[in-house]
Amino acid sequence: MATLTTFAAAKMRFKDLQIEMAHGAGGKASRRLVEGLIAPILLESPDALGDAAHVAFGDTRLAITADCFVVRPLRFPGGSIGELAVNGTVNDLAVSGARAEALVTTFVLEAGLRREVLEAELRAMSAAASRAGVRIVGGDTKVVEHGDADGMYISTTGIGRLLADVVIDVRSVKPGDQVLLSGPVGDHGITILLARGDLDLEADLRSDTRSVLPLVEGLVAAAGRGVRWMRDPTRGGVATTLNELARDGGCGVVINEDDVPVHDGVRGACELLGLDPLHIANEGQLVAVVAPECAAEALRAVRAVPGGEHACVIGEVRAQPRGTVLAMTRYGASRVLDMLVGDPLPRIC
Amino acid sequence: MATLTTFAAAKMRFKDLQIEMAHGAGGKASRRLVEGLIAPILLESPDALGDAAHVAFGDTRLAITADCFVVRPLRFPGGSIGELAVNGTVNDLAVSGARAEALVTTFVLEAGLRREVLEAELRAMSAAASRAGVRIVGGDTKVVEHGDADGMYISTTGIGRLLADVVIDVRSVKPGDQVLLSGPVGDHGITILLARGDLDLEADLRSDTRSVLPLVEGLVAAAGRGVRWMRDPTRGGVATTLNELARDGGCGVVINEDDVPVHDGVRGACELLGLDPLHIANEGQLVAVVAPECAAEALRAVRAVPGGEHACVIGEVRAQPRGTVLAMTRYGASRVLDMLVGDPLPRIC
Repeated sequence: MATLTTFAAAKMRFKDLQIEMAHGAGGKASRRLVEGLIAPILLESPDALGDAAHVAFGDTRLAITADCFVVRPLRFPGGSIGELAVNGTVNDLAVSGARAEALVTTFVLEAGLRREVLEAELRAMSAAASRAGVRIVGGDTKVVEHGDADGMYISTTGIGRLLADVVIDVRSVKPGDQVLLSGPVGDHGITILLARGDLDLEADLRSDTRSVLPLVEGLVAAAGRGVRWMRDPTRGGVATTLNELARDGGCGVVINEDDVPVHDGVRGACELLGLDPLHIANEGQLVAVVAPECAAEALRAVRAVPGGEHACVIGEVRAQPRGTVLAMTRYGASRVLDMLVGDPLPRIC
Repeated sequence: MATLTTFAAAKMRFKDLQIEMAHGAGGKASRRLVEGLIAPILLESPDALGDAAHVAFGDTRLAITADCFVVRPLRFPGGSIGELAVNGTVNDLAVSGARAEALVTTFVLEAGLRREVLEAELRAMSAAASRAGVRIVGGDTKVVEHGDADGMYISTTGIGRLLADVVIDVRSVKPGDQVLLSGPVGDHGITILLARGDLDLEADLRSDTRSVLPLVEGLVAAAGRGVRWMRDPTRGGVATTLNELARDGGCGVVINEDDVPVHDGVRGACELLGLDPLHIANEGQLVAVVAPECAAEALRAVRAVPGGEHACVIGEVRAQPRGTVLAMTRYGASRVLDMLVGDPLPRIC
């Protein structure tokens, strides 16, 4: 029933004795947990580790994805947990080549949560769903004692219909394919970090949370089957996404680091904190691998979508070094760009 | 897109200033929260408060439901959070007249959770899914700081196909219809209460968690369109379920209290604690309203299903007193059986 969007080249093993924050960070530890423990036990097709599962109900093929959200604080410049909970799920469907049609949602609420805080998130969800063109059709609510759940956790499941004219499959990626990025990286993660107020830093930044479906639709209309693979680079950032591409696609990826757009506020905060903007989470960006003959047209199409004006080609797929991402620097040197290790920014979505 | 399985007769309003434990208990306060605040903001069809939403994707009509689980302790006699998370969702689909085909699941894990605790729940989910004939096709995992999330919270969404030959609609309920109950009440809730060890009570009880789909299928095979309405009486118990029937169906419900099967251990604990077994949660029982001409055949069919041996007719639908549930006692007296108010047993599922 499940169809796979991503094949793992070599299985990771989960050897840790307990869950650590890093297992939720979206990087190497998260992948070990999911690939080494959860998927082999739960999934009939444990290779199925894409953004959404594709499931046939009679003649209808649907994409299904589930996400949970534990961001702290609940509200931050540019968005809130409710908005993330809708956009994140819509985006997981979009990058698997599907348009979200129905969402269901569950809430774990902390006793003592003020009514207006909950109401604001419900309204944020409703508005985000309306903007993304998806309906919320049901849900469930539980309450836990004061001191648990940090206000609220939200889980959303999205069900979508597959877009025509596109098949997202990492196995179709070929050397020479171009890697396209929709805009500046790291805005979401650094915004959350600054919103916590633990650091004596300020920057004029907002989360980039939004539906990436319009970008996906623009891309697919221009490049169709020339779109080989897409991903929204959330937890673990663009670096982790590209490492998954290299690993699962059995290819190398080379990017020109200077071509990656980064807002000054993100770059400054990352320099101060010793973080790499390529490891910081985004909530409204798109990484796409496009056949070389379609790349120019694809880039024009994405740039024509509101919010895609800063899209650019940041690199390309190569046959070698297989399973590895290289970042070329402005001086011609190259460095290996690894997946996120550890968790510099817990609970960013 | 959403079709409604239950219509609310008169809307409740949510006037509380903050979330309390009772809002998660499944009784009157839960209903106020969902009906007075969440549904009007989130749902396009806020009357849609059944166990599952029915959504059309092209020519395919599917039932979708979402549940979250925050039970404490994670393991208890007869089951565990993982088993509940599968069965609860399968059951919400079953009582809306659908067979679960695919599940997706999200985990909020507490940092410090031991690997074997997580692994045991994954295996419990896998086994429950296998027993219920449903596939788990995807999921998501987040980690929160030690001290939050009490080990783990699980959220599951189920997608199912509608069973042929049955339409579950509270508006089809008529005076004279018989109320059928599949077996003894209160086992789950009292088992959880005792498993916490806060009370100096012991009883030989186990949670009744299981898939009720075989019971539903037996019932539907025997009574078809004679099955008017079903519900699994979880949080808030049979009393709350019957009150929802009376309210949403615009009818009265009269039950013979002596006909309700209750295990001695449940009855004893309830007497000591001043609880009504009809308010205690079940996780593997079924309440069904069946046309009178089908009732005998329906009862035989349910009793023939393993686990349905103790099914019985506990009462009937009447025109009056509209919106009210009456329990007749052995001495011919009657009492009004209200929805659960407050939360005597927090976090039982």
